[in-house]
Amino acid sequence: MLLHLSTWPEVETYLSRRQSIILPIGSTEQHGPTGLIGTDAITAEAIAAEVGRRSETLVGPTIPVGMAHHHMAFPGSMTVRPSTLIALIRDYVVALSAHGFRSVLFINGHGGNINSVQAAFSEVYEEMRAARGSDAPSLRCALSNWFMLPGVQAVQKELFGDREGWHATPSEVSVTWAVHPDQVRDAPLDPLPETSSTFFDSRDFRARFPDGRMGSDPALATAEHGRRFIDAAAAEILGRHGAFLDGA
Amino acid sequence: MLLHLSTWPEVETYLSRRQSIILPIGSTEQHGPTGLIGTDAITAEAIAAEVGRRSETLVGPTIPVGMAHHHMAFPGSMTVRPSTLIALIRDYVVALSAHGFRSVLFINGHGGNINSVQAAFSEVYEEMRAARGSDAPSLRCALSNWFMLPGVQAVQKELFGDREGWHATPSEVSVTWAVHPDQVRDAPLDPLPETSSTFFDSRDFRARFPDGRMGSDPALATAEHGRRFIDAAAAEILGRHGAFLDGA
Amino acid sequence: MLLHLSTWPEVETYLSRRQSIILPIGSTEQHGPTGLIGTDAITAEAIAAEVGRRSETLVGPTIPVGMAHHHMAFPGSMTVRPSTLIALIRDYVVALSAHGFRSVLFINGHGGNINSVQAAFSEVYEEMRAARGSDAPSLRCALSNWFMLPGVQAVQKELFGDREGWHATPSEVSVTWAVHPDQVRDAPLDPLPETSSTFFDSRDFRARFPDGRMGSDPALATAEHGRRFIDAAAAEILGRHGAFLDGA
Amino acid sequence: MLLHLSTWPEVETYLSRRQSIILPIGSTEQHGPTGLIGTDAITAEAIAAEVGRRSETLVGPTIPVGMAHHHMAFPGSMTVRPSTLIALIRDYVVALSAHGFRSVLFINGHGGNINSVQAAFSEVYEEMRAARGSDAPSLRCALSNWFMLPGVQAVQKELFGDREGWHATPSEVSVTWAVHPDQVRDAPLDPLPETSSTFFDSRDFRARFPDGRMGSDPALATAEHGRRFIDAAAAEILGRHGAFLDGA
Amino acid sequence: MLLHLSTWPEVETYLSRRQSIILPIGSTEQHGPTGLIGTDAITAEAIAAEVGRRSETLVGPTIPVGMAHHHMAFPGSMTVRPSTLIALIRDYVVALSAHGFRSVLFINGHGGNINSVQAAFSEVYEEMRAARGSDAPSLRCALSNWFMLPGVQAVQKELFGDREGWHATPSEVSVTWAVHPDQVRDAPLDPLPETSSTFFDSRDFRARFPDGRMGSDPALATAEHGRRFIDAAAAEILGRHGAFLDGA
Amino acid sequence: MLLHLSTWPEVETYLSRRQSIILPIGSTEQHGPTGLIGTDAITAEAIAAEVGRRSETLVGPTIPVGMAHHHMAFPGSMTVRPSTLIALIRDYVVALSAHGFRSVLFINGHGGNINSVQAAFSEVYEEMRAARGSDAPSLRCALSNWFMLPGVQAVQKELFGDREGWHATPSEVSVTWAVHPDQVRDAPLDPLPETSSTFFDSRDFRARFPDGRMGSDPALATAEHGRRFIDAAAAEILGRHGAFLDGA
Repeated sequence: MLLHLSTWPEVETYLSRRQSIILPIGSTEQHGPTGLIGTDAITAEAIAAEVGRRSETLVGPTIPVGMAHHHMAFPGSMTVRPSTLIALIRDYVVALSAHGFRSVLFINGHGGNINSVQAAFSEVYEEMRAARGSDAPSLRCALSNWFMLPGVQAVQKELFGDREGWHATPSEVSVTWAVHPDQVRDAPLDPLPETSSTFFDSRDFRARFPDGRMGSDPALATAEHGRRFIDAAAAEILGRHGAFLDGA
Repeated sequence: MLLHLSTWPEVETYLSRRQSIILPIGSTEQHGPTGLIGTDAITAEAIAAEVGRRSETLVGPTIPVGMAHHHMAFPGSMTVRPSTLIALIRDYVVALSAHGFRSVLFINGHGGNINSVQAAFSEVYEEMRAARGSDAPSLRCALSNWFMLPGVQAVQKELFGDREGWHATPSEVSVTWAVHPDQVRDAPLDPLPETSSTFFDSRDFRARFPDGRMGSDPALATAEHGRRFIDAAAAEILGRHGAFLDGA
Repeated sequence: MLLHLSTWPEVETYLSRRQSIILPIGSTEQHGPTGLIGTDAITAEAIAAEVGRRSETLVGPTIPVGMAHHHMAFPGSMTVRPSTLIALIRDYVVALSAHGFRSVLFINGHGGNINSVQAAFSEVYEEMRAARGSDAPSLRCALSNWFMLPGVQAVQKELFGDREGWHATPSEVSVTWAVHPDQVRDAPLDPLPETSSTFFDSRDFRARFPDGRMGSDPALATAEHGRRFIDAAAAEILGRHGAFLDGA
Repeated sequence: MLLHLSTWPEVETYLSRRQSIILPIGSTEQHGPTGLIGTDAITAEAIAAEVGRRSETLVGPTIPVGMAHHHMAFPGSMTVRPSTLIALIRDYVVALSAHGFRSVLFINGHGGNINSVQAAFSEVYEEMRAARGSDAPSLRCALSNWFMLPGVQAVQKELFGDREGWHATPSEVSVTWAVHPDQVRDAPLDPLPETSSTFFDSRDFRARFPDGRMGSDPALATAEHGRRFIDAAAAEILGRHGAFLDGA
Repeated sequence: MLLHLSTWPEVETYLSRRQSIILPIGSTEQHGPTGLIGTDAITAEAIAAEVGRRSETLVGPTIPVGMAHHHMAFPGSMTVRPSTLIALIRDYVVALSAHGFRSVLFINGHGGNINSVQAAFSEVYEEMRAARGSDAPSLRCALSNWFMLPGVQAVQKELFGDREGWHATPSEVSVTWAVHPDQVRDAPLDPLPETSSTFFDSRDFRARFPDGRMGSDPALATAEHGRRFIDAAAAEILGRHGAFLDGA
Repeated sequence: MLLHLSTWPEVETYLSRRQSIILPIGSTEQHGPTGLIGTDAITAEAIAAEVGRRSETLVGPTIPVGMAHHHMAFPGSMTVRPSTLIALIRDYVVALSAHGFRSVLFINGHGGNINSVQAAFSEVYEEMRAARGSDAPSLRCALSNWFMLPGVQAVQKELFGDREGWHATPSEVSVTWAVHPDQVRDAPLDPLPETSSTFFDSRDFRARFPDGRMGSDPALATAEHGRRFIDAAAAEILGRHGAFLDGA
């Protein structure tokens, strides 16, 4: 059940029996010479939809632009400041809690978002505590980063070994191709750059990773692999957060 | 050409000949008993895509949640504060201008966004002026509200007369059905409430408009009408902003 | 009754029977070679005072500096960021609502303020909703832009035809001369520049409108015309907002 | 020379020989049973105008609402948060410095503003330093609180002795009557409350000072005294800041 | 009793009989050729500890970095913006008030902090008033600037006469040597610069005070003098704020 | 070399050969029935000092209060909002970079700080990129959480096995006792609560962890163990960040 394809009476009915919602969050940033700029949003949205389908949980709109300052040396990358992302997520959660939603699960496709999302949860908890004390609603926020789940990482290892890398990875590219089979890109890639995941600002990032990939070989991606990642991620998220989504 | 389905080298190539981009902005809010909560995002995205297609202009990610505090008395509505929306749009525009984008056209599906979007343009211009003076880039931001275009309003009048109303209108519902033919809702609607578009806060809004519609009869909507609105809106936006998108 | 010329016991008495207040808002910005920099504040204040007089409504202090970034290429113009103006109006409204004011009418003399003022109203409504839910006071904010009222525009058309223009107009200059008869300026004006009201940032504004006027001929202004505009504006504002000011 | 009664070419001419400006700042707050709510703005504006007249310095618009949270338990008082006032003053100074103003003197009528105004100066200096380093303009901001000037305090002592008090004082009331002779109020006043100037929040303030006065006897005020205070304040401000206003 | 060397059950016990707390605030900034960069934090912390010891009041953590933009032309100086310092102090006070602390006394070692600390108190009072009205807790915040206390200034005068100056003074240096006897510095100092305490931004500050001292002769400092200042300051703070700390 | 015990000429000399600085960050929050409220600041400061000593790196002031909203149900805990902590760290880094510091290493004692510190780094990088583009300084920020270092965790495992837990752990308590041997507390502790590290807001935290410990047995702590942890942490931080501190 997707929020944007629902009516308000349908949400009212849903809320009478469930108070949980899933929110996908991605990014709009370079993903190497062949990866789509929308990769992180596409993957988060697809996996969130799958989790929603299996658990009959409402799925809200995808946050398409995340915290990606480090990719700004590549054309087409967009970013919001952490402070903006915190304000945005705060507003989302405050709005949802007004309707009685009590469990909010963000499914995230981009490592750069993690700190800001978690900080936003603390910002909301603290604001509610300071403003309302013991009258604050029993709100619970959680974050799941699909690409970091142990079960998903096992599949990454099995399929791609040490060619998975950290950015523009064959696993995320596979998922985008499963969702958009018409968007497969085939471009000659330079040999794998030296593997390291350390960087500082956007200039430093591009100096270390000239074509945008971080130790990854996206040429290994296939749509079929993508379907397997969606399945593995959805299953593991439900295993970990199923009770949370049921309000337990 | 959609940004999220492009790679960074493709955007680099695009920027070598065009410096314009289109950004759809919608809302996630009640649209009456039969309208989809995602209506404003769906319509803005569809019309923006059509404008992008006809003019070969890049289309960026849709902002799915807008300024909709007045709909918060209906379950499922989401909202961001004006100050948050201003910060978000500021960040989008600052990021895009860093790559050399010079003309940014927001195509908007929700009246409640207008003030915040326009305020955000002023915030960006003023920030750039104050920080850089005469070194500021020649940035141009524009906003088109498709549902308020004279040509679109003529079609509204022709098809629906005074049953168009102001919210959960048959024109916007028609567009959502053209995009999502499987999402047609058919529910008995109360007689048309008295027509007025004045309201204050969300409690006042619901007191005046108990089922969420503002003087509208969405039962008149059809997918075919929706296609006509997409066409009319795209044509008029190009007529008005075509030169802008060409950098003239 | 002017707030700044009242005592607190007088306001206490007023509040026992009326809960409405009028707040003028203007701008401090160039108004062409002959118009006063304080034009928008002077006009808003004069018209607000007249509305207050006729309806026995309290009139608060004038906001003298508004959102006018686009005039910053002309010496003497001042501006506040939209985010600052939103914070300021939010504070004004929050303070007034603490005393029991329930209807706040801003009378505005400057087009550039509209988006920020309206955004501020939404910011206040949303803050009160989020913080207090159904305990929030029944606050009502409204904005009237005197120069855009149909009745006023009819007089503009009658007196000045298409020489009214959009900025440094003979109608607003007339009002300032009605208020300050000793401030009439007489300077040779260039022929009417080409008429268009589109612009982007302050550099672009000055490039399009080299002496600051936007298609206007302020040489047509007279103090007598000014008195007519004050009368027409006050009458129409009362017609539109009289019940609002009476708390109905 | 008043900014709001000037044109931009006149300001341009002024700037070619002087780069200083005076900005009055007041408050909108209770001033006891007989004092005007606009007292602090009226006094600051009158004294600033006199300083401007004597020194041929440009005087900008008065900030009418200041930081007055502690007066909020009395009807009609308004306040802005310190953070809002800092943002407002920051914007004023940034705008003026863009035109080449280099010396900005605030003449203040309200003790509650002092901390926020001084903090705003530091905020502007630090923002310019951080953003531009050694390229920052040589901006100089100063604050003069007319009611705390030694020469003014000598007159207070001479005329009112220990009945001057700290709020709703006969000296400030005198100035308002000099400016507005038609606004003299005559009401029976309770005996002088015990003299202390300590307080915490607005509830505490009203508990200590039930009618709003702080140890003052405004019944001693006269318009003639007011003229003497305007003269004394203007003379002393020029003595202290005359070289500053001359750019030395 | 120091908060950081207490456990939560010990604080719970303390709160059952006392609701006051002392918070030292300093700065991290140049103190001339021989003064320690941490001087203002060291002095505030030492004096606060002494006050806490004598009155059995809890002492919280020291704010080590304050508002010191004007010292930024000297290596090693740090500063926070006034707006940041206000937010920080607001958070401290809001957190403490949640546990039932009602009297919060800041003991301050740096003049540059005064405006921001006082503005922060107003920000907290106003936020609590606006959000909770008459339900707001009876919170009382106070500030004591040890170096400005009359009794302390008498000792300064007695020991150093007009060689005390305004920054990097022998009195504050003496206190740091009393606390850190191993940190005595002995460097040749230029003759006393001309005495004035006026300055604008950091560039202007260094132009006026080339080695960082403001009219002071820190060569007069001794650890023994420092002990005397700690004693004098603690005694006078207790004389002035003893009842406050007792909740009276 | 400690910044607060240095003079500005000493920092100037330091900067001529090194451009790195270490900043400890802790928290002020409950640490169970026997742990000190200042534990996280004490540990971070001690380990940072040791790293500074071994590598001859400058160590700045400790941030004593962190993001600890979840501990607010225990008396004496303090917290700052993530947005405040981000602003604070942003200001610290901006100030240091003005003097030429290029490598800033935060050594952190509290898990709740991690997201905000990392978000602050991104905020600074993005602000510098947006404001200065390619002219931004080559700033590098890094974070080391001593209690999560693999080498430290090996010692935790060796000494305490599964009684280490997640909060109020014997390892951190040991470090505080190594620093403050006079602060050893001995209180009867309830049996180990069930081990889980999941929680949401502060009310939920206390419901799950009634005495504040998270699966830990601080009775195992000794000062001697503490010295071993300081040594292990300092060694590992130098191993990981030694080149960073050398500017390589």
